[in-house]
Parts: sequence; C-alpha cells; structure tokens
Amino acid sequence: MTTAIIGLGLIGGSFALDLRRLNLCGEVIGVDLDEDNAQRAMVLGIVDRYTSLANAVQQADLVVLAIPVNYLPDVLNQVLNLADNNQLVIDMGSTKSNVCKRVKDHPNRKNFVACHPIAGTENSGPDAAFSGLYTGKVNIICDRDLSAEDQVKKTLQLFDALEMKTIFMSSNEHDKHIAYVSHLSHISSFALGKTVLELEENEKNIFNMAGSGFESTVRLAKSSPDMWAPIFEQNAENLSEALGAYIDILSQFKQMIDQRETADMHRFIGEVNDIKRVLNGIKLNN
Amino acid sequence: MTTAIIGLGLIGGSFALDLRRLNLCGEVIGVDLDEDNAQRAMVLGIVDRYTSLANAVQQADLVVLAIPVNYLPDVLNQVLNLADNNQLVIDMGSTKSNVCKRVKDHPNRKNFVACHPIAGTENSGPDAAFSGLYTGKVNIICDRDLSAEDQVKKTLQLFDALEMKTIFMSSNEHDKHIAYVSHLSHISSFALGKTVLELEENEKNIFNMAGSGFESTVRLAKSSPDMWAPIFEQNAENLSEALGAYIDILSQFKQMIDQRETADMHRFIGEVNDIKRVLNGIKLNN
Repeated sequence: MTTAIIGLGLIGGSFALDLRRLNLCGEVIGVDLDEDNAQRAMVLGIVDRYTSLANAVQQADLVVLAIPVNYLPDVLNQVLNLADNNQLVIDMGSTKSNVCKRVKDHPNRKNFVACHPIAGTENSGPDAAFSGLYTGKVNIICDRDLSAEDQVKKTLQLFDALEMKTIFMSSNEHDKHIAYVSHLSHISSFALGKTVLELEENEKNIFNMAGSGFESTVRLAKSSPDMWAPIFEQNAENLSEALGAYIDILSQFKQMIDQRETADMHRFIGEVNDIKRVLNGIKLNN
Repeated sequence: MTTAIIGLGLIGGSFALDLRRLNLCGEVIGVDLDEDNAQRAMVLGIVDRYTSLANAVQQADLVVLAIPVNYLPDVLNQVLNLADNNQLVIDMGSTKSNVCKRVKDHPNRKNFVACHPIAGTENSGPDAAFSGLYTGKVNIICDRDLSAEDQVKKTLQLFDALEMKTIFMSSNEHDKHIAYVSHLSHISSFALGKTVLELEENEKNIFNMAGSGFESTVRLAKSSPDMWAPIFEQNAENLSEALGAYIDILSQFKQMIDQRETADMHRFIGEVNDIKRVLNGIKLNN
C-alpha cells in the first residue's frame, strides 16, 4: 500500500515510522511545504522520497494528513479533488468540527475518515518523530457515518495494527471534550511558563529552585506555536468556556488564600485527589 | 551519629533511607503522631525503632524535622527546648519565613539550620519513601547567620554526601521565589484537576481522551492536602501575588481566544517557548 504522508513533523513522521516498522505500507512518499523538513525526513528514513502534493496523492493508496489545523481544510479539499474511489484519506488533527464542516458536501467525502490519535510530545519537526509514539494510545474517529464503511474498516485495521484503541463520536462532541482534557492543559502550562518568566527576573532562581513539579506542569509550554495557535482559534468557543471555568476556580482558590480559609483549601485539595482514580483509569486504558 | 527523624512520610523517610545507604548515621529513631506510620516505617527499614519526641531528641545527635509546616514551629520549639550544645536540628519544610520567625529568639536558635531540600513526588506516607530522592537536587539553607557556623558546616557535609547542591538565601527571599516556581505549579494543577472533574461529568471521556499531556500537567493534583493546605496558608501573601499574576495572564489569553487574535496567541506561545532554555538549565543544575 503506497502511502503519502502530508506533513513530516512529529505526528506524520512517527506514524510513517510505525507503518514501516509493522510492514503495513509499501513505498512512503513525503510532502512538506518546507523542503528542509522533507530532506531531513528522507535522511531519517521516515520517507523513501518526497514530491509535490498532487504527485503524491496520484500515486498513493493511503493519504495521511498530519499538518496544522489551519492548513488542513484547504489541503484536504485538494486531496479529495484528486481522490479516486479506492483511496483512503485520513487526517490527524486535534480539532475536528471545522475540518468536517468544510468537507461535508465534497463529492468524495466518503473517502475521508476524520481521525484524532491522542498522542504527541512537546517536541516538533521530523527529528522529534519516533517509532512507538502511538502504541497503546486512543484514536478517535469522528462523524463515522459520513465515511464509506470499507474506508472506516481499513482505518480500524490500521490503528488496530498499531495497538491503538479506537472510539467513535461526533466531531462536535470531540471538540467539546478535548477542550477540557487536552487544550486547557496546554493553556495552563503556557500561562504558567509566562508568569514565571515574567516575574522571576533573576533566572538563576528559577534554575536553582524549580523542582520536578515545576518541570512537569510546565513541560507542555515547550509546544509549537504553529501547531497550537490554530487549534485554539478553531476550538475557541469550547475553549473559552473551559478556560473561563478554570479561571473561576483559580479565583475561588485565591479568595481562600486571601481569607486564610485553610480548612476549605484542605477540603478542596482532598476532593481533587480523586484525580488519582481518573489517572489510574487513563493508565489502564492506555 | 544517632539520628531522630520526626515525621516518617515521603520526605523524612527518604532522607533516613539515604543516610543509611551512605552510612552517614548510627541508629535511626523515628517519631510520628500516627503509630501506624511509625510501625510501617520500622517494617520498611526506614527506622530502627520509634519512640516519643522527648525520648528521641534526648538520644539523638541529629534531629530532622520532616512534618507539615503547620506543626513545625511548635515541635521545633519543643525540640530546641531539649537541645544541648552539640545537637544539630534541621527542618525540611517548604515555607521558611514563619518557622524562622517563630524561633528567632529561642536561646538554642544557633542549633537550628533551616533547610529546604527541593525534592518530592506527588505521593506521601512512609510507603512513598525511597532512597535516592535527594540525589542531584538543590538544598536551600535560610538565614544562615542565625545558625552556629559549625552546625552549618555539619549540615553542608550531610547534604554534600547526598550529592546535593546547597544555596543560601534569607527566609523571606526563599518564600517569595518558591511561591512562583513550586507553590503556584501545585495550585495550577489542583485547579486543572478540579475543572476537569467538575465539567467532564462523563468520566469515561476523561479516561479515553486524556493523553500524556493532561497526565503531566495534572500529576501534582494528587499531592496531599495535609502537606499543602498549611503551605499555602503560610505563604499566603507571596502566593496571592503569584496567583493573581497567573490569573491575569490566563484572562489575557482568554481575551485573545474570544477575539480570535491568533497572531497574538502565536507570538505569546513563541515567547513562552523560551522556557525550554530554563528547563535545560534546571536539568544542568540538577
């Protein structure tokens, strides 16, 4: 199965490496706006060669779109314009409503399966790609009814082979939930990084005094603006609600601090400790 | 050197295990308000035996206080009341101004060296203790001039042997900086956990959709309320300032989202990416 990977960063690159490791693909053709990235992906053994979008799509049985969500709808439209009956086209974007809406009436909509494999790191680019990124993770397929059933089946076989668990939901539902469990975490981390950078003028103190707790909560603040700014824009409505709720809770906490309501803080923290159960559930699932 | 460990949780227990591993102590005597904890610490090989506070202090050359900061000043006063000339008393609390103020005029103040080894995990209790927790970490000694020079010297030898780097600052300075680089991270994580638990009523979605990013930012939300509520109370002033700054930045971000100012978000994230440099610095230091 000749495979075209559009976008040769962490997400597309790791996916290609896994397909190759598991012998799930034939030739892998890369496409990237940035020729340096494309060459690097070839050097790293992620793709066999690279070419233009149109060329790649014409030769591929499987087209994987792994590009920032602001470019996704236009590029997906171009890909679907070129698609024939048997071609499977999947994307890997972190927002789903917008892209699904934009291709809703495309005559080749049935070739497209809207995917979100929940995997990633704070790093980006082809050098960040690694085999095994997807193993044991969850993949979400959105608006399944708008895809041809055999294309969904092929997609499931692919993700099953990668040892991923696939679940189904509507693209609107996806965007609402993912705002809370992924996008909000990134904003909390970006804002924490900003607060500390702005206020700790003497950086030596950050170096010396920050422990593993700070490192862990601020890790996501290393994430790429090219990827995340468009995600926040596209999921603005859900995210505004989630972020508003987060700010309200922080403000309640600030009030408890200001009024020295230590017993209330204790109760609050005790309740949040229930997150242990949730995180154990994530581990069991992943 | 007979050693008394007051408080047999993660912090005191791990310290005892390291002292034993490195043959830095003779007999280790434990003290804990909770007898189950004390027995468990004995079973785990953290202490040789346990007894009352007064008994332990009377027999020890080194007294290590590793208890929540709300109990610390009173217990430290009791310990200093019993201390003789040669005894070294150290604490390991995460706030330093309050405890230093409370024993400032104690006749045996010079026996006491105020320490904050920056190490820990989100777990607590004697079962969470492990040897190696402190290796390569930073220790802060506060208000050094109020301690006898030979007691500071003994303390440094101890932390050097644990392969820790010690830095010095005033207790007020300590509390101001630590609010930003440690206490604020914990609040951001507690509040994130609370937001997601409250709003994602269908927990199945959290299990399925949360990835490693959520896990990382919310890890600290598992931390013990007994330890953290008193820390927040004691560092209320600095923390209120830090949390206020954090809420302001989140509110700015919400405004960018609401007004779809994607270019501004992109710039914001790009600037915060500078945290990479800081985090690399932490790695180099630790």
